[in-house]
Amino acid sequence: MDEIRIISKPLADSTKTVLIGFPGSGLVGSIALQYLVDNLEFPQIGSVTSKYFPPLAMMTKGVINVPVRFYEKNDIAVVVGDIPIHPMICYEVACGLLDWFAQFKPQEVLTIAGIVTNEPEKRVFGVATNADALQRIQNDTMILPIGSISGIAGSILTECKIRDIPGLGLLGETVNNPDPRSSAATIQVLNKMYDLKLDVGPLMEQAEEIEAAMHRIAEEVQTTEAGQKKEQLPMYG
Amino acid sequence: MDEIRIISKPLADSTKTVLIGFPGSGLVGSIALQYLVDNLEFPQIGSVTSKYFPPLAMMTKGVINVPVRFYEKNDIAVVVGDIPIHPMICYEVACGLLDWFAQFKPQEVLTIAGIVTNEPEKRVFGVATNADALQRIQNDTMILPIGSISGIAGSILTECKIRDIPGLGLLGETVNNPDPRSSAATIQVLNKMYDLKLDVGPLMEQAEEIEAAMHRIAEEVQTTEAGQKKEQLPMYG
Amino acid sequence: MDEIRIISKPLADSTKTVLIGFPGSGLVGSIALQYLVDNLEFPQIGSVTSKYFPPLAMMTKGVINVPVRFYEKNDIAVVVGDIPIHPMICYEVACGLLDWFAQFKPQEVLTIAGIVTNEPEKRVFGVATNADALQRIQNDTMILPIGSISGIAGSILTECKIRDIPGLGLLGETVNNPDPRSSAATIQVLNKMYDLKLDVGPLMEQAEEIEAAMHRIAEEVQTTEAGQKKEQLPMYG
Amino acid sequence: MDEIRIISKPLADSTKTVLIGFPGSGLVGSIALQYLVDNLEFPQIGSVTSKYFPPLAMMTKGVINVPVRFYEKNDIAVVVGDIPIHPMICYEVACGLLDWFAQFKPQEVLTIAGIVTNEPEKRVFGVATNADALQRIQNDTMILPIGSISGIAGSILTECKIRDIPGLGLLGETVNNPDPRSSAATIQVLNKMYDLKLDVGPLMEQAEEIEAAMHRIAEEVQTTEAGQKKEQLPMYG
Amino acid sequence: MDEIRIISKPLADSTKTVLIGFPGSGLVGSIALQYLVDNLEFPQIGSVTSKYFPPLAMMTKGVINVPVRFYEKNDIAVVVGDIPIHPMICYEVACGLLDWFAQFKPQEVLTIAGIVTNEPEKRVFGVATNADALQRIQNDTMILPIGSISGIAGSILTECKIRDIPGLGLLGETVNNPDPRSSAATIQVLNKMYDLKLDVGPLMEQAEEIEAAMHRIAEEVQTTEAGQKKEQLPMYG
Repeated sequence: MDEIRIISKPLADSTKTVLIGFPGSGLVGSIALQYLVDNLEFPQIGSVTSKYFPPLAMMTKGVINVPVRFYEKNDIAVVVGDIPIHPMICYEVACGLLDWFAQFKPQEVLTIAGIVTNEPEKRVFGVATNADALQRIQNDTMILPIGSISGIAGSILTECKIRDIPGLGLLGETVNNPDPRSSAATIQVLNKMYDLKLDVGPLMEQAEEIEAAMHRIAEEVQTTEAGQKKEQLPMYG
Repeated sequence: MDEIRIISKPLADSTKTVLIGFPGSGLVGSIALQYLVDNLEFPQIGSVTSKYFPPLAMMTKGVINVPVRFYEKNDIAVVVGDIPIHPMICYEVACGLLDWFAQFKPQEVLTIAGIVTNEPEKRVFGVATNADALQRIQNDTMILPIGSISGIAGSILTECKIRDIPGLGLLGETVNNPDPRSSAATIQVLNKMYDLKLDVGPLMEQAEEIEAAMHRIAEEVQTTEAGQKKEQLPMYG
Repeated sequence: MDEIRIISKPLADSTKTVLIGFPGSGLVGSIALQYLVDNLEFPQIGSVTSKYFPPLAMMTKGVINVPVRFYEKNDIAVVVGDIPIHPMICYEVACGLLDWFAQFKPQEVLTIAGIVTNEPEKRVFGVATNADALQRIQNDTMILPIGSISGIAGSILTECKIRDIPGLGLLGETVNNPDPRSSAATIQVLNKMYDLKLDVGPLMEQAEEIEAAMHRIAEEVQTTEAGQKKEQLPMYG
Repeated sequence: MDEIRIISKPLADSTKTVLIGFPGSGLVGSIALQYLVDNLEFPQIGSVTSKYFPPLAMMTKGVINVPVRFYEKNDIAVVVGDIPIHPMICYEVACGLLDWFAQFKPQEVLTIAGIVTNEPEKRVFGVATNADALQRIQNDTMILPIGSISGIAGSILTECKIRDIPGLGLLGETVNNPDPRSSAATIQVLNKMYDLKLDVGPLMEQAEEIEAAMHRIAEEVQTTEAGQKKEQLPMYG
Repeated sequence: MDEIRIISKPLADSTKTVLIGFPGSGLVGSIALQYLVDNLEFPQIGSVTSKYFPPLAMMTKGVINVPVRFYEKNDIAVVVGDIPIHPMICYEVACGLLDWFAQFKPQEVLTIAGIVTNEPEKRVFGVATNADALQRIQNDTMILPIGSISGIAGSILTECKIRDIPGLGLLGETVNNPDPRSSAATIQVLNKMYDLKLDVGPLMEQAEEIEAAMHRIAEEVQTTEAGQKKEQLPMYG
């Protein structure tokens, strides 16, 4: 309780699904769910803080954002994190979140993360805490036969398994850069599962911009060593 | 409670504003608020200590100063710190301070910090925990569109947001040296917000002295390698 | 209690033996007991988690496995771990497990581990917490005259000794690679002790495959420096 | 309470002054106060230990000494430490000592430390927790205008300030060697303040011996590189 | 209590002496007291474990030994440790042991350790917690005039001093190898103090074997660089 502080309105009685996305490989989960809550206009209902989080205030247009936030709309609750969760506290964060959500008896908890394969495809791999849950995503994802999931996504799935809460994992194939294209692929799975009708067009455009920028940088690096260019962002130290 | 010990008189009923400044980039916040309490003759009302603070006694004219102090006058409470707060304890310090001040139901908490831009200007950037609070500083500061604030200022703003206490941040544009000119710029914003009529002339003179000294040092370093000169200050080890 | 969380059905009254295998040298203990529960179809009855475990979800055919699991059948309970236990928490894990099992008054606790000898044989060494227990394995193992057992197996045996629970250790002679052949040797001892009739044929085949692969790799390394070949397993980072 | 264990007789009702000396620069405080209690024959009344102290037993003529000791005579209590206090525990030690002494309502707490100036003089600098206390030492010390005092002396003075116990600091000018001459200078201040009539002659002789030895070593080092000579002291490892 | 777990029969009413030996320089204390309990046939009465001890099970002829053990016979209790106590936990171990033994009001606690002098002699140095106790060993040891004792022996003597339990230290002169000859010298002192009539002949033979082996190794190293030879002891990793 002391380790994770959750300040939130209770979930609506009808809410039966919890979607969770934290930054990880490709930032797949946090990009996907921030895009979802922004475009489907999910209102924020709560905040999470912790003495273990780095001392950091994020801001958007001058207004402070708490780094981990709860949103809710149309029977779906969403957890979006702006900060990566350190391995030392994944257990505490996963337990803290599931302690809180468990009181509303969710029918399923779905976490989105990235999986680095070094291949150009953008497949979505699926895992689940039991065979029934796995069937939910069998047609829309590529079931991951064997392996392990580390980090906060791993902790959430393990906790779901232990608590007998149906848990699902969508792992978007990605590289080690912010990857909206992979996020879009996971949203397409969410669209089918929850009938969200969320247009991923703008996200794909964003992906193309990032990819074009990456391409330009790669070319510049090749033609000249003076090609590095950093934007001057103000940093408070 | 155990982590942060606050020994203070209670705030006056009329006090509705809390200003907070700790050393950070350019020491902007601590220089500004120490100058304010000294020149507007705010009496000290309390002290803060912690097992996490470094073992250190500051002194002025032979009299010991506790490194973090509370002052109060004319409906304004001020927190001035002489020691930087380590990232590991920013959460505890922010929570300890806000736990204590929250009992007096402040109408706003304003924290001053520095922001390094490597530009010669001395703009004051503004952030706030919600749109209403942001309006308070919209005309007098440059709203920071996007980014993050780390350290104790970030923790205080995040805690204000979570506790629904209107929180404001003034970020003085600065370099990595003590920067009274940036502090003076933030005081000008305070002058407008709280009608303080605090003359920043002496602070500007101090800034000119520091800048002239920096200039001399830079020139000496250029003309001769033997230009370094350290004053012999007694140090207790 | 807080350090190790055990979520499990209680043991059957008739269950009097607890077998424990965690990954260590050669993964001897975990391979042996996973093979046992899979092939003798022991149902899983519980899970163990801990804030000290790494944040990790294992999966088999897309279904999440908790990294430490309890199984039970035919008066035998089995603990299988997929993750090595860090020396810093061996005491807590050993105490947590024995606190839980002690309530069912087991007649003996047997832990399987590997022992590196750099010899080609696959002997099984035996140790026990007292002379009576040692007699149980005197004919089927080579009694280890002197030495020390470190890690979770050492902690479990020490805790058994202290609590006066008869404790046995089977140490399979091994090398520093996954070693199903050594695991098979320890299963042969279990077959005699508990009349399990478990066929180790498939395990021996697996051992031959691993050994053949090792042999190939060694040869390739000798003939060409470009002989390294890594399979591309997707890794979530 | 748990962090610092004090085993001591209570102070006499008449005792109103507490002198404190721990090893620091020049060992000024511990040499001065050990000399004082030895030569004025203060009986030991108590001991201090802590789980944070290094595991160490000091001895004199074969008899074990606890590393931190309380003495008392003629309305003066003395704390002498043989071990330097690590920065990480200065807060705990200062609070533990002041918690214990506060119950006897001391009229003043005076701590002695060294201050390195790299000058040949042996001035005694003075600081205090308020203006009244500062007056007590204004004539006999050189008031330190500005600066900071780190370590256990700093923590004790800060705690005195916070608890409103009049606190005094005598900082003997010193170098980075055991410095009885600086200790003698601080004793001269104590002689005036408390009318102790303590002869510092033997301490000055000791200082001359140390200084002569230092001088010899310096000369030997200059004339020959083989000049190093270490006495073979038995060390228990 | 939580830090050190002692599982033991209570001491007999008549037992008034506690001997303590942990591994340190030359393993002097643990060799001496293990030899004593083995040859005088002291039965084991208890065990000590701790979450701070390394995860380790020792064994003798296949039977597990807890690394720290209590023995008792003829009014003498003995504590023998097989593992060195880390400086970070000496305080906890010393307090835990003395908390437990104090309830039986021992008349004296004697700890044996090694002291490295780099001299060929095997003198036994003596220290005590007060002048009366020192007299007990004045004739049979060489009183150590000045110095410090670190490690668990130092912590035990400091705790004895603080608790006013007569404490004695026998420090066997030793080198940095297992040194049964030094252990034998300390046993000779015990023989005189407690009239044990323990023959140290076999220990001296063992010492000669070790010394002969050391001598051989030294010669081999001199004549050939290929002289290193390590026995292949099975190690569990």
